[in-house]
Amino acid sequence: MRNPNIVILGAGYGGIMTAVKLQKSLGANDANVTLVNKHSYHYQTTWLHENAAGTLHHDRTRIQISDVINTSKVNFVQDTVTEIKPGDKKVMLENGELSYDYLVIGLGFEAATFGISGLKENAFTINSINSARLIRQHIEYNFAKYNNEAEKKQERLNIVVGGAGFTGIEFVGELANRVPELCKEYDIPRENVRIINVEAAPTALPGFDPELVEYAMNSLEARGVEFKIGAMIKEVTENKLVFEKDEQREEIETNTVVWAAGVRGNSLVENAGFVANRGRIPVGDDLRPEGYDDVFIVGDCALIMNEETGRPYPPTAQIAIQQAEQTAANLTRLIRGEDHLEPFEPDLKGTVASLGHNDAIGVVFDDKKLFGWSATAMKKVIDNRYLLKLGGIPLVLKKGKLNFFH
Amino acid sequence: MRNPNIVILGAGYGGIMTAVKLQKSLGANDANVTLVNKHSYHYQTTWLHENAAGTLHHDRTRIQISDVINTSKVNFVQDTVTEIKPGDKKVMLENGELSYDYLVIGLGFEAATFGISGLKENAFTINSINSARLIRQHIEYNFAKYNNEAEKKQERLNIVVGGAGFTGIEFVGELANRVPELCKEYDIPRENVRIINVEAAPTALPGFDPELVEYAMNSLEARGVEFKIGAMIKEVTENKLVFEKDEQREEIETNTVVWAAGVRGNSLVENAGFVANRGRIPVGDDLRPEGYDDVFIVGDCALIMNEETGRPYPPTAQIAIQQAEQTAANLTRLIRGEDHLEPFEPDLKGTVASLGHNDAIGVVFDDKKLFGWSATAMKKVIDNRYLLKLGGIPLVLKKGKLNFFH
Repeated sequence: MRNPNIVILGAGYGGIMTAVKLQKSLGANDANVTLVNKHSYHYQTTWLHENAAGTLHHDRTRIQISDVINTSKVNFVQDTVTEIKPGDKKVMLENGELSYDYLVIGLGFEAATFGISGLKENAFTINSINSARLIRQHIEYNFAKYNNEAEKKQERLNIVVGGAGFTGIEFVGELANRVPELCKEYDIPRENVRIINVEAAPTALPGFDPELVEYAMNSLEARGVEFKIGAMIKEVTENKLVFEKDEQREEIETNTVVWAAGVRGNSLVENAGFVANRGRIPVGDDLRPEGYDDVFIVGDCALIMNEETGRPYPPTAQIAIQQAEQTAANLTRLIRGEDHLEPFEPDLKGTVASLGHNDAIGVVFDDKKLFGWSATAMKKVIDNRYLLKLGGIPLVLKKGKLNFFH
Repeated sequence: MRNPNIVILGAGYGGIMTAVKLQKSLGANDANVTLVNKHSYHYQTTWLHENAAGTLHHDRTRIQISDVINTSKVNFVQDTVTEIKPGDKKVMLENGELSYDYLVIGLGFEAATFGISGLKENAFTINSINSARLIRQHIEYNFAKYNNEAEKKQERLNIVVGGAGFTGIEFVGELANRVPELCKEYDIPRENVRIINVEAAPTALPGFDPELVEYAMNSLEARGVEFKIGAMIKEVTENKLVFEKDEQREEIETNTVVWAAGVRGNSLVENAGFVANRGRIPVGDDLRPEGYDDVFIVGDCALIMNEETGRPYPPTAQIAIQQAEQTAANLTRLIRGEDHLEPFEPDLKGTVASLGHNDAIGVVFDDKKLFGWSATAMKKVIDNRYLLKLGGIPLVLKKGKLNFFH
């Protein structure tokens, strides 16, 4: 009897953690495990905003898959998924196809642009190493051009971030640190540069404790971030952004719009025929979509409801990692011939949002609020804990955030 | 009786050295010396190609004027010259005007584009801190974009340098060092990138010893530089360059053309009414244009003939510095009431062209040829000697090239 094939799509938080856990729990004769990923590396999506701002190098954020995957136990295929065919138990790749007995889908998010005119064409999104370092260079290139033009263009120095949710706030926090350095590098007065955060909701960080939101906004405003709250983006072009606030239309001249206001599940998953809601697939507490006993969905594409709030859990790294651990354990049970799968229950440890290098806000463990240095330190603890799980102490030493006093 | 006004235009090699020498040779009651410059800093034009390639930071290349000029002895006006009126003994600035008794013009070069279609609009020139760091960022931005596009554009990775004279050769030498770093930074295979040097003359480095030229070309070709010699650039657009070689037209897809093939004197000087030849003003051995006893021209705008070769001396830093020293000495004589001015005679020490960090060629002292490390070391000696003249040992320590083993 041949070994069952387990195929894992995507080496994001969910996919890579599933692979790492399976290589520990399964023996070489239990199953063939294959991990498929577009790049040779995994990256920490939650650090990309730092790479995009230019405050952290992207080599700190990415981890070569070969550094955490034992390729004598798990096959690694570097390729791009083009189609999932759950009826045929197949996955089509740009350069091949794979058959599976069990499939783990960890394909992550796409930006949701809500049909806003010109947004898709003219705004950047922070969703990969490639896009993050392009944003870094795009901002810097505009600064470099500024003093080379006889007629100074303010659009080069206005940076607009769409969305004051988690990513938007963390990104403007990094920009507030980075902009003074760029001003020095290109001989531009700091006061000429604007960092503008536009949010449609009536508050920044919707869902966060109001006291924390106020702290965050004060901290960021003190470092020169402008907020436009309750402002709907209407249009983005190559050199301006139009929004509406209090029934007034306003324009901002800008070459740089970074969209951090909406995500949806990967469209490949929706196109595979699963029932979907904005690209996310409702799954049971075993993380399988209804009617598919051989498919597990982990991370951003999985839709699970929070019974307490009656709303879906947000797509976070924390939940993706927990889902991956659960899925690896359940797959191991299935491979060993057990019928009973353990149900998934999120164990939320809390949330910390950084506000640049030296400041942060957070809620951890039973609603305790954190501000400033203690929140910054907690964020680093969380990040290092993930690296420890993924690659042990060597990986923490190599990629961890170990300077707690910076 | 009021003190005579000496006005110095430009803080390039010629202008700043004139000012530094005058502040030593003249007392506070001898004359009012005013130095006018667009920026608050002097820069070493001969290092700009390193800043443009990204192999040396521009802060190493520039020197704050206040670090070498004693402002209690020399006035510094940061402004842009708009017109020279030798008839009225006046200089018009963007934000003012100055009257002079003696004028020293050290306004430097402009790119000569010889009417090549699209060159002025689409090619970069290495002529200031602003333009150099823009070239650095432009190249890097194209590398950053490359992997973000579904259809890869070769034009982003083809870098074309127009001219294999001194600057062109030195620039491609730095690029050959820089490109592998950029490839690593942006996950691009080195073999996808082309560095192409296009020269209209029948040889690279026209005027150099053929043995040195061969050495230089071999060194650069070994590091991946392609030469198109005897190739006339016909047209430059946003994304291509057209040249003609052996009566064949060829196109290179490229977003990056750096023009290093021709300079002319500053057009302000020509427009002032002096007799001019491609923007350069023939001057006597006292460095004054015929008919103007109160005007001295130093550096790139001064045209002096080499009696031995029957051709004009090239506009080099070495000659500009010697002219400045001569002019400061002669001005001191005039201020002190002496009639006799010392004639200028260039004292050519030799020439060294770098080929990146670790290689160079040169001719120094009586036609001795230098290759490799000894030429690299000689280049650094020359650069440090200039800094020593300009600002003494502290400036050498701050901005000098002191690592002779790199």
